[in-house]
Amino acid sequence: MHQILLLGAGRSASTLISYLLSEAKSNNWFVTVADQQLEIAQQKINGHESGKGVSLNVTDESDRKKIIASHDIIISLLPPNLHDLVAGDCLQLKKNLATASYVTRFQQEVQREVKNAGILFLCEMGLDPGIDHMSAMEMIHTLKSEGAQILSFKSATGGLVAPESDNNSWHYKVTWNPRNVVLAGQATSQFLMNRKIHYLPYSRLFLETEKVKVKGLGNFEAYANRDSLSYIEKYELQNVPTIIRQTLRSKGYCKAWNALVQLGLTDDSFQLHASNDMTYSQLTASFLNAGKKSLEEQLAKFLGEKKNSEIMQKVKWLGLLGNNKINIKNATPAQAIQQLIEQKWKMNSDDKDMIVMRHEFIYKKGKKKFIREAVLVMKGEDQIHTAMSKTVGLPIGVAVKNILNKTIRQKGVCIPVHQNIYQPVLKELMNYGVVFTENEKQISA
Amino acid sequence: MHQILLLGAGRSASTLISYLLSEAKSNNWFVTVADQQLEIAQQKINGHESGKGVSLNVTDESDRKKIIASHDIIISLLPPNLHDLVAGDCLQLKKNLATASYVTRFQQEVQREVKNAGILFLCEMGLDPGIDHMSAMEMIHTLKSEGAQILSFKSATGGLVAPESDNNSWHYKVTWNPRNVVLAGQATSQFLMNRKIHYLPYSRLFLETEKVKVKGLGNFEAYANRDSLSYIEKYELQNVPTIIRQTLRSKGYCKAWNALVQLGLTDDSFQLHASNDMTYSQLTASFLNAGKKSLEEQLAKFLGEKKNSEIMQKVKWLGLLGNNKINIKNATPAQAIQQLIEQKWKMNSDDKDMIVMRHEFIYKKGKKKFIREAVLVMKGEDQIHTAMSKTVGLPIGVAVKNILNKTIRQKGVCIPVHQNIYQPVLKELMNYGVVFTENEKQISA
Repeated sequence: MHQILLLGAGRSASTLISYLLSEAKSNNWFVTVADQQLEIAQQKINGHESGKGVSLNVTDESDRKKIIASHDIIISLLPPNLHDLVAGDCLQLKKNLATASYVTRFQQEVQREVKNAGILFLCEMGLDPGIDHMSAMEMIHTLKSEGAQILSFKSATGGLVAPESDNNSWHYKVTWNPRNVVLAGQATSQFLMNRKIHYLPYSRLFLETEKVKVKGLGNFEAYANRDSLSYIEKYELQNVPTIIRQTLRSKGYCKAWNALVQLGLTDDSFQLHASNDMTYSQLTASFLNAGKKSLEEQLAKFLGEKKNSEIMQKVKWLGLLGNNKINIKNATPAQAIQQLIEQKWKMNSDDKDMIVMRHEFIYKKGKKKFIREAVLVMKGEDQIHTAMSKTVGLPIGVAVKNILNKTIRQKGVCIPVHQNIYQPVLKELMNYGVVFTENEKQISA
Repeated sequence: MHQILLLGAGRSASTLISYLLSEAKSNNWFVTVADQQLEIAQQKINGHESGKGVSLNVTDESDRKKIIASHDIIISLLPPNLHDLVAGDCLQLKKNLATASYVTRFQQEVQREVKNAGILFLCEMGLDPGIDHMSAMEMIHTLKSEGAQILSFKSATGGLVAPESDNNSWHYKVTWNPRNVVLAGQATSQFLMNRKIHYLPYSRLFLETEKVKVKGLGNFEAYANRDSLSYIEKYELQNVPTIIRQTLRSKGYCKAWNALVQLGLTDDSFQLHASNDMTYSQLTASFLNAGKKSLEEQLAKFLGEKKNSEIMQKVKWLGLLGNNKINIKNATPAQAIQQLIEQKWKMNSDDKDMIVMRHEFIYKKGKKKFIREAVLVMKGEDQIHTAMSKTVGLPIGVAVKNILNKTIRQKGVCIPVHQNIYQPVLKELMNYGVVFTENEKQISA
């Protein structure tokens, strides 16, 4: 019997755990879910005979090593900063590892050791990164087999709220880790446009966006997502003039979020003085020059906006001019803002989330130029089986199955860009609603 | 005989070493200068009978501990990230320590242990931080003894080039660590204005500056220097409505430097692709949107400037549109810019540097309101005994003397805000040209 260990039973683990348990009998698995909070781990197993929930403090080296040693494959849904503890043990104890997170610096450094140990670290196996890699690679391999010369590749993904549950002016709700929503993009982004490398610092990230139209859903905005340049080689896109990975938001979001960035409110590097007793309007004021005008007028002036502009309305709706207390001791500005968005952008119990992913290829065949796009729109079922939980968790689940049944035979540190990895995974994901719609048109003779 | 150990024999150590050697006989000292490069350490001792230069790799724990154990007091002029290694040993081996750097987080955390060990860590004992603390505290204590009610305290310091050596449009040359010039201000600054706390993010630091007039030298610009709020208590300025520490630059510097900040060129967090073969104009272009215009026009448009504006002229003079290659492998943008300023802002062999420090107090006595300022203007002698080297090194030297002769009897982690520390040090520093000019006028009845 294969022993599967899942570390971290948080929100995004629900669908993955359901999948692993439902497949357990036919695949001869046993699933151990370990979390700091025993109750949460047990709740998710819900008495299933093929699984158990256990308590684990993952920073306790001896406990961690003991539990890893007694399993065949480890799935880590821990916060990225804890992955490396687990990765180190997996390397030492020669255990396969699967994660939905970006390859860490440590994982990069031990690539050769992992390969020599005859094990696989399969990373970036969630939604974004994950499904985006797999679906893009399938298209790239198809285009190449058709003899196409790719001129441009743009890939954009957003974790959004479904239109029927969208009832606020930002057209956004928190459907994943709210801390990451606040800190998103805090590094210089890198991409390629017309053969020219572009670096875009955080202070301009939410200003220099692109329009993206999705059929049936309307216009979105896309901002550059981290380092796209590192995917040129991984995607086998050498000599393609334009390559950018992006994050999708509803129209109007980026310019309004930029107001918070320009103020300095997304800073997580220092603690506010007396944050406990500070109100949100005092917080906003502390990032503005003092003046005799009202705070609203000061803010509008700072942003170069009229008092009732769209951006001002969004910012006011969020509560930045409100008199609620932050009520957190030693909060960073980012922590104060996180609390605000957790309240204001909260999903109601009958709300549904929505994943939108779009790949756009411009390519040449002979003398003709074409645009081919693939779009995934996927909505959640409820508050547990959200589209986010499905799309982050299911790819790992299916991959784990394929590693255990030896369909996936790679060794070393991999991301799912190889056909023998993405093909069976994408095929099985279609059963769960991960279905892309492709369309193509000629754009010049 | 007292054994003094100086760690780090770089540029700013010259005057300190001269001082320690010249005072060695009369104070019964022996001075050991340890540096990674034996030659530099020996050169600075220059055969003096009261000193010796030794080679030390400070990251070698055993060697480091051995040399620290055999000395009475340790001076660290090492880069800040190495201070804590030394501080840890000094605590363990019960040795006094003096530095010109900001108190580190580690030093803060071990405050009690240091005190209990009966030793002194005297930090922030250079120019800024250092002379600024001492001279400000002397004024604060004097004002309080006069019964003044302080309404505002502003303190600004700049390491600049002397007017007679100023021959470039930025009116700036590199007179200290060029890396720190590039990275200056990369954290949200904090200060108090009219009883209101202000946070100013890096993206606005060089835009929201204050004019500062210095008699005889003209107008300067001051940008907020780190966390001024943490000095409210240390300076005994509780209930004073306005408190800000600032950095001084010549007029026009900040707006032009802001162009580099807005572009993203001061980023030290990622490595440029193929930086070795990249030219500076390609570097600049990579931070701009592509367009059909010339790079110069693109840059002017981005900055909202005319092609020949003052800012554009400065930026062009620096070489941001030039075709020189960066010629450094895996350079960060900040490293590429550092190389540029090391060339363009280089001090010539007969150039002199200049320190400008200004404290401004607004205070009330009875119903009358006054402004009192103290200004230090100090020029270097030559390329070795620069004003920077004197003002960074001499305070530590004098403090070490006063620790060894027990004039300074404090224990624990201290900065020089106590009268028994600053008074004898400031007095002796006057012999070396550290002389403030005070003037005062009534500003309202």
